Amino acid sequence: MKLNIALLAGDGIGPEVIDQAVKVSNAVASKFGHEITWKPALTGATAIDAVGEPYPDETHEICKSSDAVLFGAIGHPKFDNDPSAKVRPEQGLLKMRKALGLFANVRPTFTFPSLLDKSPLKKERIEGTDLVFLRELTGGIYFGEKGRREEGETAYDNCVYTREEVKRLAKKGFELAMTRGKKLCCVDKANVLETSRLWRETVQAMEKDYPEVEVSYEFVDAVAMRLVQWPNSYDVLITENLFGDILTDEASVISGSMGLMPSASLGSDIGLFEPIHGSYPQAAGKNIANPMATVLSAAMMFENFSLHAEGKAIREVVNKALNEGMVTEDLADGGKSYGTSEVGDWLASNI
Amino acid sequence: MKLNIALLAGDGIGPEVIDQAVKVSNAVASKFGHEITWKPALTGATAIDAVGEPYPDETHEICKSSDAVLFGAIGHPKFDNDPSAKVRPEQGLLKMRKALGLFANVRPTFTFPSLLDKSPLKKERIEGTDLVFLRELTGGIYFGEKGRREEGETAYDNCVYTREEVKRLAKKGFELAMTRGKKLCCVDKANVLETSRLWRETVQAMEKDYPEVEVSYEFVDAVAMRLVQWPNSYDVLITENLFGDILTDEASVISGSMGLMPSASLGSDIGLFEPIHGSYPQAAGKNIANPMATVLSAAMMFENFSLHAEGKAIREVVNKALNEGMVTEDLADGGKSYGTSEVGDWLASNI
Ligand SMILES: CC(C)[C@H](C(=O)O)[C@@H](O)C(=O)O
Ligand SMILES: CC(C)[C@H](C(=O)O)[C@@H](O)C(=O)O
Repeated sequence: MKLNIALLAGDGIGPEVIDQAVKVSNAVASKFGHEITWKPALTGATAIDAVGEPYPDETHEICKSSDAVLFGAIGHPKFDNDPSAKVRPEQGLLKMRKALGLFANVRPTFTFPSLLDKSPLKKERIEGTDLVFLRELTGGIYFGEKGRREEGETAYDNCVYTREEVKRLAKKGFELAMTRGKKLCCVDKANVLETSRLWRETVQAMEKDYPEVEVSYEFVDAVAMRLVQWPNSYDVLITENLFGDILTDEASVISGSMGLMPSASLGSDIGLFEPIHGSYPQAAGKNIANPMATVLSAAMMFENFSLHAEGKAIREVVNKALNEGMVTEDLADGGKSYGTSEVGDWLASNI
Repeated sequence: MKLNIALLAGDGIGPEVIDQAVKVSNAVASKFGHEITWKPALTGATAIDAVGEPYPDETHEICKSSDAVLFGAIGHPKFDNDPSAKVRPEQGLLKMRKALGLFANVRPTFTFPSLLDKSPLKKERIEGTDLVFLRELTGGIYFGEKGRREEGETAYDNCVYTREEVKRLAKKGFELAMTRGKKLCCVDKANVLETSRLWRETVQAMEKDYPEVEVSYEFVDAVAMRLVQWPNSYDVLITENLFGDILTDEASVISGSMGLMPSASLGSDIGLFEPIHGSYPQAAGKNIANPMATVLSAAMMFENFSLHAEGKAIREVVNKALNEGMVTEDLADGGKSYGTSEVGDWLASNI
């Protein structure tokens, strides 16, 4: 297979971890006879510094003409203390999601037996957790009309959803559940919000098309609780943009392996793959960042091309590295640790 | 002091736990020389069954003319599978909050040394946790315009906040922080939402009036993570209605003592006091429900009348019961347990 992959390294540790994912992907490609052409492009604070905006048109053109996007991380502290600054890295992220039609954010939370003790939860609570959130990513209150009135004294944000938006996300959820534990939880606040009632009635109407999937409906506040209490009781969860933002982050820390969690953002067309961790500027350039989440994001990318053996090869080599202690300092428990690039080299050469 | 207290027992286990709080409050009143007149009134599913609505005018009149409201729990499973039902217990709750002007929901999460092992979190994570959320309760997306258009295919919910609404909540937050650890965290999503930017700028402008309070600003997704990772790093948190709904419930389970957590909803006028647990219909009428959260809510009620010794007497007797194993089965770890009313009697007679 010939693959054109847009490479958006972004800010902070982005470039370092992306480098390792490229090495590992290239090793996979050569082992399985694929050919990858990497197309680097600017994004985030790096792009603001270079050309004045976080998601330049040129970057968008490169993404549009590629088969997938591999993404590092964006964000820089110099933008953090002024949320109303006119140009911010996050705006690039939102623009990119919308422009590429990435409506489904796939956020798995799973555990590694060797890392269970990193979880803030007790072992018996976290053991066996293997869940996936599908977060709607291009609608809801993120993209509704927002502004001020009464001379700035009143602020508003509109949350809007159409049945079609809910359907296409829910469809991915049902399909994903069919490949996994066949359980789907629709997370909403249907006792208060009209958009949630639309979500719930739309999903209810789809149930008959997936008779094997066991569907449940839970309020977002109840899920925020059960994620901490019994995370291993979930399989696939679908939810709207803002609830997904909060709950996927909550879920990411319960495993204790946040530095290892990959994600995918899918649309009808192109997919984007990125680690869930941020740009972690304090660690940038120090060769200490853990590249495994980005490497596992590359695994999701191969799997999304239906290259399952390729994805599996990556997952296996990551497991092997964990078992053999070929890890960065965040996972070394004070024992021997390796640099970002050493871990990347080891993974690539063990594919 | 002469106190008129509206007594809204509600549904499920509500009446049983309320009974115990009444006993304990009466014991406190007689010890400290106060006179309480209890005014029972209908609410929730019970009120729907009796008079067709969850918060009848008569109940509202009773609340308005009282000095405080002691509330049990509402909700019944027969309403759960139809979120769009025209009359629902939750609507009564929202109507009551708005009608009584209860704009500040005070939700503490603290730990009991003897119950630390009930937490889903590891001991070193949860130990020492003592935080309070102030959730805005009468604004935001809960009360904004909502509805459908395009023949029901599009749903919308508006989130609206005025600077005044933010100010009065934040003021309570600053004042509360001054009586505690002097740390205030404003939880928002100012990188995306205009209402959050209004929250942040309003709180920023108030900082100078409370120079001793150390203020931080965190995004709601980050807080959802840190609550699980380092709950004991927080003191007072202020936030808008929907974020508060999600985060206070998340916070409530980390302590492992959810069955013991009280809450208060305050306005400029009357206060309402209730356990955070629900109506738990499966346990109703079995004399097994834990009354301690409701009893501690009565403690918050006394404290809100500046009757601090009275509140303390209740907190102490609850601690004593926990230490001496005078507990309901949820806390008995398979050991000896007591009924709801036995625990209530014991607490009242040990005041
Ligand atoms: C940076 C921010 C706009 C973004 C979001 O809220 O979607 C982030 O939190 C995420 O989850 O990817
Ligand atoms: C029942 C529901 C409307 C309510 C809310 O969302 O406010 C509840 O979850 C709560 O937190 O008191």
